Amino acid sequence: MPQILTFLGKGGSGRTTVAIAAAKQQANLGRRVLFVSQDPTPATGILLGVPLTDKPQSIGANLEVVLISATVAIERGWEEVKQIESRYLRSPLLRNVYGQELAILPGMDSAIALNALRQYDASGKYDTIVYDGTGDLTTLRMAGMADSLSWYLRRFVAVVEESDLWRTVAPIMQPAMAAMLTIAWTGETAVSAPMQEANNFLSKSQDAIGNPQRVAGYIVVTDEPAAIATGKYLWGSAQQSGLTIGGAIVNRGTLTDILAAEFDPLGVSAIPNRIGDDWQPLTDALPDFSQAVTAPKPITIDVPKREVRLYLPGFDKTQVKLTQSGPEVTIEAGDQRRNILLPPPLKGSSVTGAKFQNGFLIISF
Amino acid sequence: MPQILTFLGKGGSGRTTVAIAAAKQQANLGRRVLFVSQDPTPATGILLGVPLTDKPQSIGANLEVVLISATVAIERGWEEVKQIESRYLRSPLLRNVYGQELAILPGMDSAIALNALRQYDASGKYDTIVYDGTGDLTTLRMAGMADSLSWYLRRFVAVVEESDLWRTVAPIMQPAMAAMLTIAWTGETAVSAPMQEANNFLSKSQDAIGNPQRVAGYIVVTDEPAAIATGKYLWGSAQQSGLTIGGAIVNRGTLTDILAAEFDPLGVSAIPNRIGDDWQPLTDALPDFSQAVTAPKPITIDVPKREVRLYLPGFDKTQVKLTQSGPEVTIEAGDQRRNILLPPPLKGSSVTGAKFQNGFLIISF
Repeated sequence: MPQILTFLGKGGSGRTTVAIAAAKQQANLGRRVLFVSQDPTPATGILLGVPLTDKPQSIGANLEVVLISATVAIERGWEEVKQIESRYLRSPLLRNVYGQELAILPGMDSAIALNALRQYDASGKYDTIVYDGTGDLTTLRMAGMADSLSWYLRRFVAVVEESDLWRTVAPIMQPAMAAMLTIAWTGETAVSAPMQEANNFLSKSQDAIGNPQRVAGYIVVTDEPAAIATGKYLWGSAQQSGLTIGGAIVNRGTLTDILAAEFDPLGVSAIPNRIGDDWQPLTDALPDFSQAVTAPKPITIDVPKREVRLYLPGFDKTQVKLTQSGPEVTIEAGDQRRNILLPPPLKGSSVTGAKFQNGFLIISF
Repeated sequence: MPQILTFLGKGGSGRTTVAIAAAKQQANLGRRVLFVSQDPTPATGILLGVPLTDKPQSIGANLEVVLISATVAIERGWEEVKQIESRYLRSPLLRNVYGQELAILPGMDSAIALNALRQYDASGKYDTIVYDGTGDLTTLRMAGMADSLSWYLRRFVAVVEESDLWRTVAPIMQPAMAAMLTIAWTGETAVSAPMQEANNFLSKSQDAIGNPQRVAGYIVVTDEPAAIATGKYLWGSAQQSGLTIGGAIVNRGTLTDILAAEFDPLGVSAIPNRIGDDWQPLTDALPDFSQAVTAPKPITIDVPKREVRLYLPGFDKTQVKLTQSGPEVTIEAGDQRRNILLPPPLKGSSVTGAKFQNGFLIISF
């Protein structure tokens, strides 16, 4: 199974340069590498020395590069959407809507990139995929997307099923639904085959993102205070989105004790300035990315101890909020919310205590 | 009516610095200014000298700053959503879902920012609003959001109304809809009061974004080739999203003939490096933002000449695609699609010719 690497940091700290160096390092190690860019501007192509294309192109031994173009991807994806529709709907609605006319709404880029990464991941053609996205909160929203979507699905299915409206309308809807769907529909519950399929799909994505052997992020900083502050913020925020941060990389700088302390207990590497086309000093200085597994995990649930531990480094107590207004426990940090689906023995339990200690939020039930 | 200014460019080119300088310049001119940040990391607060808050705070004469926090905004916005729901649904579904538990999905940040800008714009408290967003394609997707949404709405309402499915299901749905809705529902057409309301809302947003007296973007570059290439790409891409680019700003550089030629016919200003806390040399060097109205408009429709002109600078002929697969004409450029709703005399006409000339795509009907 391939490992997906991604790099986070303040704009201008050199995320793309580090991502390219990482791709070259992995290719030099004999791994089959795909570098996935989501930068439609010419900037990444200038760094790589070739204009990017929307199909993978080889630019060296073991190294391919590709640009995710939203307009191209939505055309391909639309055919899949039509196929899914035709599996469930007797009379497809979307037949006469064409992929070529679909406009791109905010958020679609993230969904398109996730889908592309999933396909490259499953293709069996690559050992390492380097995803060079926006490298900021947008990437983290994307990393947390499966988790958030599965929450919306379970929350709103429950809301609909428990509503007066549903009880009134469900029996009336029966003939309408029978006319619409190719599958049996009992009318007693909103959970049907497509929901089940969506749930399976989302939980597979969540499993991959939660496993640092499969997906890991690295923080890129320079020695500027704003870059370090942003890096630390993104470290905690990444953990909050469920993405394990494997280490920090100081670009165009030297490793000081202060920098090492800022990212303790992570490994911190410093890579030199790139001179001309010589990437070797950079690839040599990069960390061993397989070590991401030794970094603290974003979440651990200890059922016998009735305890959930979330690793939220870089935040202090006042920046992390815990609420239980809905049926689940909600954690807020880094302008993100995470609802925690507890395993059966803890499910529905109330929080009995919470403490914030050495970057860990420890919740007892 | 306030003017909204936003700054686009490659990460690290100093968009936020220029945006802060612009806010200070406008405040010095006696205009009441709101600087709106969407950067949850500490970086913008470090530049401003104060940590940002989610309510506007004054940081000088005529100058307030605010951070759009998605988690805070979604709580407030959720109450509005519930109110809208209760206007149309007899038995609201969302009563027991709380704003505090809602997770943020990709794209929601853009919708939240647009909504916040709309509210600050309508508040009557400000003459200039400086929006410091991500400054890349994400900002452009947001600028084009009203246009794209209104296309989806008109396209899919038509698809549903013309479908066999709708004709089969509509009469059966009648009692269900009568039980659900507080408003009359004829069952013959899907266009009802909420749709009309959504359409009005979207066309107001489109009008504001299309008017450079109300909304204008500026391109920020440095003298690095990648920053210039990205800036030019974003110039054309902004026009494609419907956002007028009023000029270009060279940060930490000097204005050369080459740079002036790259952005011809726009005005190009160069601003010096900031030294310590002295913003004066920067604010002095910034352009007069009221001149954005003299820049070429993204789109002009000439009904008597049966001609549509789109200004797409920075692209060449091969990067701009025109199709007519659906009921409207689709323009593709800068990884964005724009469907053109023609006014009545041209509506439904086929394209008879198209040429690309001096950055203008001229389509004849």
